[in-house]
Amino acid sequence: MRCSCILPDPDAEGELVMNELTISLKPGKQIPLYEQIYEYIRKEIRRGAIQSGEKLPSTRALSRHLEVSRSTVELAYEQLLSEGYIEAQPYRGYFAAQIEGLYQFSGSGQTQEKREQKAERTYRYDFTPNGVDLKSFPYNVWRKLSRECLLDDRAELFRLGNPQGESGLRSAISSYLHQARGVNCTPDQIIVGAGNDYLLMLLCAILGSSHRVALENPTYRQAYRLFENLSYEVCTVDMDGKGMRADKLMESGADIAFVMPSHHYPLGTVMPIRRRMELLAWAEKTEGRFIIEDDYDSEFRYKGKPIPALQGYDGSGKVIYIGTFSKSIAPAIRMSYLVLPQPLYRRYRERCGFISSTVSKVDQLILQKFIEEGYYERHLNKMRALYRSRHDTLLSALRETVPEPDISGENAGVHLLLHFRDGRSEEELIRKALEKGVKVYGLSEYYVDGKEQADTDETVILLGYANMNEEKIKEAVKLLGEAWANC
Amino acid sequence: MRCSCILPDPDAEGELVMNELTISLKPGKQIPLYEQIYEYIRKEIRRGAIQSGEKLPSTRALSRHLEVSRSTVELAYEQLLSEGYIEAQPYRGYFAAQIEGLYQFSGSGQTQEKREQKAERTYRYDFTPNGVDLKSFPYNVWRKLSRECLLDDRAELFRLGNPQGESGLRSAISSYLHQARGVNCTPDQIIVGAGNDYLLMLLCAILGSSHRVALENPTYRQAYRLFENLSYEVCTVDMDGKGMRADKLMESGADIAFVMPSHHYPLGTVMPIRRRMELLAWAEKTEGRFIIEDDYDSEFRYKGKPIPALQGYDGSGKVIYIGTFSKSIAPAIRMSYLVLPQPLYRRYRERCGFISSTVSKVDQLILQKFIEEGYYERHLNKMRALYRSRHDTLLSALRETVPEPDISGENAGVHLLLHFRDGRSEEELIRKALEKGVKVYGLSEYYVDGKEQADTDETVILLGYANMNEEKIKEAVKLLGEAWANC
Repeated sequence: MRCSCILPDPDAEGELVMNELTISLKPGKQIPLYEQIYEYIRKEIRRGAIQSGEKLPSTRALSRHLEVSRSTVELAYEQLLSEGYIEAQPYRGYFAAQIEGLYQFSGSGQTQEKREQKAERTYRYDFTPNGVDLKSFPYNVWRKLSRECLLDDRAELFRLGNPQGESGLRSAISSYLHQARGVNCTPDQIIVGAGNDYLLMLLCAILGSSHRVALENPTYRQAYRLFENLSYEVCTVDMDGKGMRADKLMESGADIAFVMPSHHYPLGTVMPIRRRMELLAWAEKTEGRFIIEDDYDSEFRYKGKPIPALQGYDGSGKVIYIGTFSKSIAPAIRMSYLVLPQPLYRRYRERCGFISSTVSKVDQLILQKFIEEGYYERHLNKMRALYRSRHDTLLSALRETVPEPDISGENAGVHLLLHFRDGRSEEELIRKALEKGVKVYGLSEYYVDGKEQADTDETVILLGYANMNEEKIKEAVKLLGEAWANC
Repeated sequence: MRCSCILPDPDAEGELVMNELTISLKPGKQIPLYEQIYEYIRKEIRRGAIQSGEKLPSTRALSRHLEVSRSTVELAYEQLLSEGYIEAQPYRGYFAAQIEGLYQFSGSGQTQEKREQKAERTYRYDFTPNGVDLKSFPYNVWRKLSRECLLDDRAELFRLGNPQGESGLRSAISSYLHQARGVNCTPDQIIVGAGNDYLLMLLCAILGSSHRVALENPTYRQAYRLFENLSYEVCTVDMDGKGMRADKLMESGADIAFVMPSHHYPLGTVMPIRRRMELLAWAEKTEGRFIIEDDYDSEFRYKGKPIPALQGYDGSGKVIYIGTFSKSIAPAIRMSYLVLPQPLYRRYRERCGFISSTVSKVDQLILQKFIEEGYYERHLNKMRALYRSRHDTLLSALRETVPEPDISGENAGVHLLLHFRDGRSEEELIRKALEKGVKVYGLSEYYVDGKEQADTDETVILLGYANMNEEKIKEAVKLLGEAWANC
């Protein structure tokens, strides 16, 4: 039994020696005395200066020699005990625990890898197809509703809520879906979640592993990558002008089809009723087959009525409907919803019913009021008018500027497609536009599965108009005319 | 070429006949005329009254006969066209599309399964171990910060943010973790997410499939079920008084260990330094091994300093740290965070960097201000004092009431464990307490993997005190004394 011998610390302000154990206590400092004693002994044990099995001085002896109260030393020893640096042996005292040789402790912090945060260059004119006009976000209403929701000290609002989302919000969504989208569902079938990505992850947990998912090509890449990363087999199925080909879907061996029937992204295709029925018939043919309907931006259609959701035609519980408020309100509010057919809803309850909601109750309540009090409808009307005007401006500007433009995907959504068949490459068209300060997007980045482009000789450019006002659209199209004229 | 013959609708308000096609238009009604025409023809096609291939009247003829403008009929035909009910043939006109025989349309809505929403019975005294005192939630501060965040019409706040969470919040979390938990990390390594469940799902997406996860037994059931549902192999590893046994972990064949070293749930065990090093040594031995450290409630410790996180000892990038604000602020704010070691962080960027954040920017900004402006620390101090007082009250009430109580798991968290070795079953103890209006919880519900209870002859009851004030605790313990005295 021996105690380690420590040389006095030259920085010590007050120095106390006890047996052979020296601790420099700094009583004036912010760190409590017990913590200084604890820190000191811990460090000595970690660096091996106090070896395993060595006996420590008794609390009484150490307190006397350090001229501190016994409870101070006891507190230090208790902390060392609870973290396992020392061990208490009845009637014998405290001993350093055996920790050396097991593992090399981390140094003064992990090596900090510095990554370059690539600053996204911004362009004077950006035709991003993913834009949402946030100048029109209803700030006043949102503030007002948020104030109202937080008005009372309601503990209820901060208690863990229903895993599916609050029933008030689900009722509001269910009536909205019925009226606006022709979706047949009860609030029970709805699961509110923090964004489509999360809901697709949840859906994979509900469906379980070993599925083969078929997507259109091009498609919403995010979904493709998610399924892939969640270890699903993914494949693509050829499209024609009516959307995913049902015969090719049959051949693909997939049991899940991911489609956007009301407005395909990025092509803007509307799936006609016949194709929809073929897909439903495909799903009905075999148990376990499902169709995921991503109805991401059906709110915006500038000609006629909205195209009804596929879910509304589903008589056999085969369609999983997914919708979002990201496009129609704002991306950062993080609220989407899943409508599960009854058989899957039961599976959800069994397998995943315990998974907590990902949306805060306050946000759910704000959104519920936003829908129920008519603000959502008004906001949609306002945005539809705004986007329609930009859509019309872009169309007429293109027709004036580009000779005989070949346009598709218009009349809905917030972007359209411009087709070129003059041999010019996507890269060239994008680069020429960039040189004039206009950012445009190529269709090729929406292709997955190794495919780079459709098997045609055409080049397709996407022009999104949600983020640009009419004046800017006109200016930008003029520049595009110049950029592409002298290619 | 023939047109279908429809009998006049007896409800018709104004009736117009054209060729053989009869449509009852109701001009006074809210539904626009074009929609009435569209609805009528759509219904007739769906029920087979207009058969596929049949020619529809020209827009000019129909408009003349219905005495509506031609554009009204055009609008109706366009809608039918875009939904695929009719097809346009150049120079020939419009024809009903072939849709019959493919699929039986859904009726007037899916059969609505009504589930009984089991109303959770509430008890006068509830010793739930998952309580959070929400009477102390800082409502005023939260309101104030929320108002401040929403003050300006800042579009930035509603644009899609950083997938990892906003950098300001991540910096605030990283300094907090460094100071309070001894965690070594840069803000870069932090991923903010909507709750632990979500972050574990994300972690599985980062780690990929085919892993074997070892958990302690008893454990946090939610984590066990999640791993299981995400198709991981799960197994349990025996514990001793120091936590997960490293030798058994080695034998288990697992490559991922899920532990709660600073305060095991539900046992309250603190993993001593030696065991921590054994686990770190286990992880270091083979590439691909990781330790998930769930540090769910380390904020509450009533004796000495907080126990430092295992992550702080990790020198080889093996510990994945997960923490939450659910326990320390409120369950419904849905904010947790993951600290990834560098190698996994790179994998996250590659595989999952595209997955959008699940927390709204407004909420992130509120929390950031809450931490940075010192409110979080003050709130923690307040809660610690509050819970400590309830903890002390419960301890002394138990010592006065229950003869020689065998208590463990005290001094930290918000619950303690009461051990019985008199042969009485958990069921009996819980039932007797319930008869007095006191809800207590058994340890057995925390066992997984088919195990129902530890292999001992003891019965363990959990008593959580976060949700009860001192007076209620005293009353409840008195009732427990009566309930259990005459068992």
